Amino acid sequence: MRLLFIGDIVGRPGRDIVRQSVPGLVVERTLDLVIANAENAAGGSGLTPEIYRELVAAGVDAITLGDHIYRRREIFPILQREPNIVRPANLPNEAIGRAWATVKARNGTLVGVVSLMGQLYMKPIDSPFTAADRVLSEMPSDVKVRFIDFHAEATGEAQLLGRYLDGRASAVLGTHTHVPTADETVFPGGTAFQCDVGMTGPYDSVIGRRIDRVLETRLTANPTAFDVATGDVRISGALVTIDDETGRATHIERVCVRECDVPRLEALGKRS
Amino acid sequence: MRLLFIGDIVGRPGRDIVRQSVPGLVVERTLDLVIANAENAAGGSGLTPEIYRELVAAGVDAITLGDHIYRRREIFPILQREPNIVRPANLPNEAIGRAWATVKARNGTLVGVVSLMGQLYMKPIDSPFTAADRVLSEMPSDVKVRFIDFHAEATGEAQLLGRYLDGRASAVLGTHTHVPTADETVFPGGTAFQCDVGMTGPYDSVIGRRIDRVLETRLTANPTAFDVATGDVRISGALVTIDDETGRATHIERVCVRECDVPRLEALGKRS
Amino acid sequence: MRLLFIGDIVGRPGRDIVRQSVPGLVVERTLDLVIANAENAAGGSGLTPEIYRELVAAGVDAITLGDHIYRRREIFPILQREPNIVRPANLPNEAIGRAWATVKARNGTLVGVVSLMGQLYMKPIDSPFTAADRVLSEMPSDVKVRFIDFHAEATGEAQLLGRYLDGRASAVLGTHTHVPTADETVFPGGTAFQCDVGMTGPYDSVIGRRIDRVLETRLTANPTAFDVATGDVRISGALVTIDDETGRATHIERVCVRECDVPRLEALGKRS
Amino acid sequence: MRLLFIGDIVGRPGRDIVRQSVPGLVVERTLDLVIANAENAAGGSGLTPEIYRELVAAGVDAITLGDHIYRRREIFPILQREPNIVRPANLPNEAIGRAWATVKARNGTLVGVVSLMGQLYMKPIDSPFTAADRVLSEMPSDVKVRFIDFHAEATGEAQLLGRYLDGRASAVLGTHTHVPTADETVFPGGTAFQCDVGMTGPYDSVIGRRIDRVLETRLTANPTAFDVATGDVRISGALVTIDDETGRATHIERVCVRECDVPRLEALGKRS
Ligand SMILES: [Fe+2]
Ligand SMILES: [Fe+2]
Ligand SMILES: [Fe+2]
Ligand SMILES: [Fe+2]
Ligand SMILES: [Fe+2]
Ligand SMILES: [Fe+2]
Ligand SMILES: [Fe+2]
Ligand SMILES: [Fe+2]
Repeated sequence: MRLLFIGDIVGRPGRDIVRQSVPGLVVERTLDLVIANAENAAGGSGLTPEIYRELVAAGVDAITLGDHIYRRREIFPILQREPNIVRPANLPNEAIGRAWATVKARNGTLVGVVSLMGQLYMKPIDSPFTAADRVLSEMPSDVKVRFIDFHAEATGEAQLLGRYLDGRASAVLGTHTHVPTADETVFPGGTAFQCDVGMTGPYDSVIGRRIDRVLETRLTANPTAFDVATGDVRISGALVTIDDETGRATHIERVCVRECDVPRLEALGKRS
Repeated sequence: MRLLFIGDIVGRPGRDIVRQSVPGLVVERTLDLVIANAENAAGGSGLTPEIYRELVAAGVDAITLGDHIYRRREIFPILQREPNIVRPANLPNEAIGRAWATVKARNGTLVGVVSLMGQLYMKPIDSPFTAADRVLSEMPSDVKVRFIDFHAEATGEAQLLGRYLDGRASAVLGTHTHVPTADETVFPGGTAFQCDVGMTGPYDSVIGRRIDRVLETRLTANPTAFDVATGDVRISGALVTIDDETGRATHIERVCVRECDVPRLEALGKRS
Repeated sequence: MRLLFIGDIVGRPGRDIVRQSVPGLVVERTLDLVIANAENAAGGSGLTPEIYRELVAAGVDAITLGDHIYRRREIFPILQREPNIVRPANLPNEAIGRAWATVKARNGTLVGVVSLMGQLYMKPIDSPFTAADRVLSEMPSDVKVRFIDFHAEATGEAQLLGRYLDGRASAVLGTHTHVPTADETVFPGGTAFQCDVGMTGPYDSVIGRRIDRVLETRLTANPTAFDVATGDVRISGALVTIDDETGRATHIERVCVRECDVPRLEALGKRS
Repeated sequence: MRLLFIGDIVGRPGRDIVRQSVPGLVVERTLDLVIANAENAAGGSGLTPEIYRELVAAGVDAITLGDHIYRRREIFPILQREPNIVRPANLPNEAIGRAWATVKARNGTLVGVVSLMGQLYMKPIDSPFTAADRVLSEMPSDVKVRFIDFHAEATGEAQLLGRYLDGRASAVLGTHTHVPTADETVFPGGTAFQCDVGMTGPYDSVIGRRIDRVLETRLTANPTAFDVATGDVRISGALVTIDDETGRATHIERVCVRECDVPRLEALGKRS
């Protein structure tokens, strides 16, 4: 199967390009499943029920989040009820949302979906290593394809988790830094890995925010509204090919959709 | 002119591939200047006089460092005396080493070399923004080509510094995370930018260190020796083309030299 | 002269006990000057012009702040205009507010007032050591009594700054942790020192906030409103005796005003 | 029963004053149990078997540690075998050492001993809240007196854990900042609490280390050997009175032994 993972969708620009491009991408790249990290989808921080539905309608089959997960209380019922959205599994047991989910791909394959957060340079949280062990053992053994979004800051921690899970997950793909890394690879055990798949939103920005605002605050300590930027909108993600029988990844490649690609993808998507 | 910047050289594997490949790269890529970050060159941490000389002999024209700069006291005299090695300019004034240097490229162009460190998720240090202003104003105005290694953890801080210096530096290229980012670009003002150019050393590792050791410590809290790994050695860096008259970058591309490239480069280098 | 420094005033409970008690404390303790840290005075975070005036009316002669200084934009004009309120001196030069102030004590002595912030475990900021040197050299040399509020997290950094400034400041007293330390002392050079003078506000709390709210967020990751608590309100501070001629401190003692002390202090204050 | 808890013993000066004073303190203060944090006992960092035995011989009945626990490998067998020394309970399950211990006090009462580490501004570690729940439920229910050393940086986290465990532990006393806080109290449920009991070692120092060395490194970024200081040695700790039947604390007071107290305590100790 072919799985596309879309990195942190930031604000309206990010949502717009997802809505315009994902149906066409499904056709163009013969995708069986689309997973997206939506922690910045609502005005740059958090997710709302409306946006959740907008993304699902656009062809996003499963959603992960990150440190901004609980920024909007309206999303709590969605986190509790909907079967295709997960919270980071290493949050406390009492945290709202499910620790893992399974979704069915277009080709009929069941896919386990997990979100984990890093500990280094993040808010205090329990070990993603222990949580990964727990979640992977809870999943039905017939779910061979297992996807993990590792929402983390430090490259060393991402690499270590990827190596730790090599052979036990089909893919360990990073989010949170909003910058794609050029290290996509399949580890020897069959786990596709990339430190960060990058951000889906405006690249004429500082990790999605208006440059002038972030700069003013940095130079003067004066707080400003870090509004979502608007220029040079892209989808950034990774496309992983996975053997459905074994759950082993066979290939990973970076995906970047730019504004100039949108008309073509829109046309492709409408025809389908 | 064409400038190659080589990311954090890690241990003997990193030094070996630099020594074997750089002379050939100079020929193959028609390089005018080679700058390298050598903060991990000595056993994974710091730099020694011998290794400094080894790198210079291999064709490295200027050297930057980072948080590990003072790990080996033997390097202090080199930092004080040699004209082609700089300390991070936002360290205290009293810190050993020069805050900027100029080196002459093979084509005769003078190039200013600066190192700065990030503040976010790093040890306390003064603002790299203020230090950049100071250092750039100290440099002779006829030094048009100005190179900055930004040794930093957080992508947002790297992007912000790059945008801040757009038009004032020829290149702002990152180091420290040991993972190359896929965001190389030339900003509108003519500054080449990349969050991190990646590590030069063993990629079958956790940011250069033995996987088993780092994993044991993470899983048990038991300290282990984080020895430099050995497998899948690469040079990772970026090649920037710069207009000598204006100092504006016109192009940037990622460079990755793998073990299979070494024989070809060695042959090329010997012929020169 | 006798100088009372009042630690972080938190919300209405903190302001109330200051208003009720400070006039009486001035009488009871024969105070020549009252300085207060007001960074949490407005609803637990920041300061407003009204609260600034309320505190001054209550007998607070000078005000320092901390990391929450710019939380309320309304305070900006006060920071720019009023002569008895300072911003942390190691913020960027462009930051709003004055880097130091002088105020006249009841006994006629001029007192220099400085605020500095720590670097360790705080948001990125320039060195308080360098900023202290700069500010102390800017102050007129006839200002012998020099007070420094060091708003910092780490005890080691506080002790180091205190030792560094020993003999150059009359007092280096800490704020920010909201817990008084039992280490008040006068260093050999004549600098009164205490890592933290503690918080002025509700002690039946978690550093001033409602226990139930902070606990829920910690246990579930669910964000809650960290409202200011209400029970067991205290003033916490330090009283320093200083030789006006030399600026050297001769004594420091912790001050704690509890709710049961308020009626007595109110009566004393009204009589004056 | 009366329990003395001695904060972080730092180097030889700390060990010396413990050896000289604890036997006398047992007499003078009619102590039933002495617990000490020894994470800095060996040259300022870690613990060795010899020093473990030295402390036990001096009258220390149980030992806790902290982030420096594994600095010396020689201590591993002691951590595995000895019944009166614990590792932080929120380290990974695989970490060497026991997660809790019970020791018998001089009056015959069994006392549970637990160490936990904070998450805020510390290296990544699992929740001390969850670990406290687990460890307290594992302890035999007839162990009514339960002591917890909370080795943490942030006051807010310490207060929150203390409030969380109020009524379930006899005492939650902090270590790690090396500065005693003036907030010792018994919470309504019967838990004695203090953010930090302070350091046992040289106070003419920066948290136990030579001032000149720490200052040089801070001002120049030049690493120096942070040797243990020598002047103004003190024991800092807290004395808690606990009802053996219920395990509830009834009183807590700070304890400070200074060099001038040593002759008296030595005489007292020898007589016993
Ligand atoms: Fe995030
Ligand atoms: Fe994000
Ligand atoms: Fe580094
Ligand atoms: Fe490095
Ligand atoms: Fe603060
Ligand atoms: Fe505060
Ligand atoms: Fe510690
Ligand atoms: Fe310690």
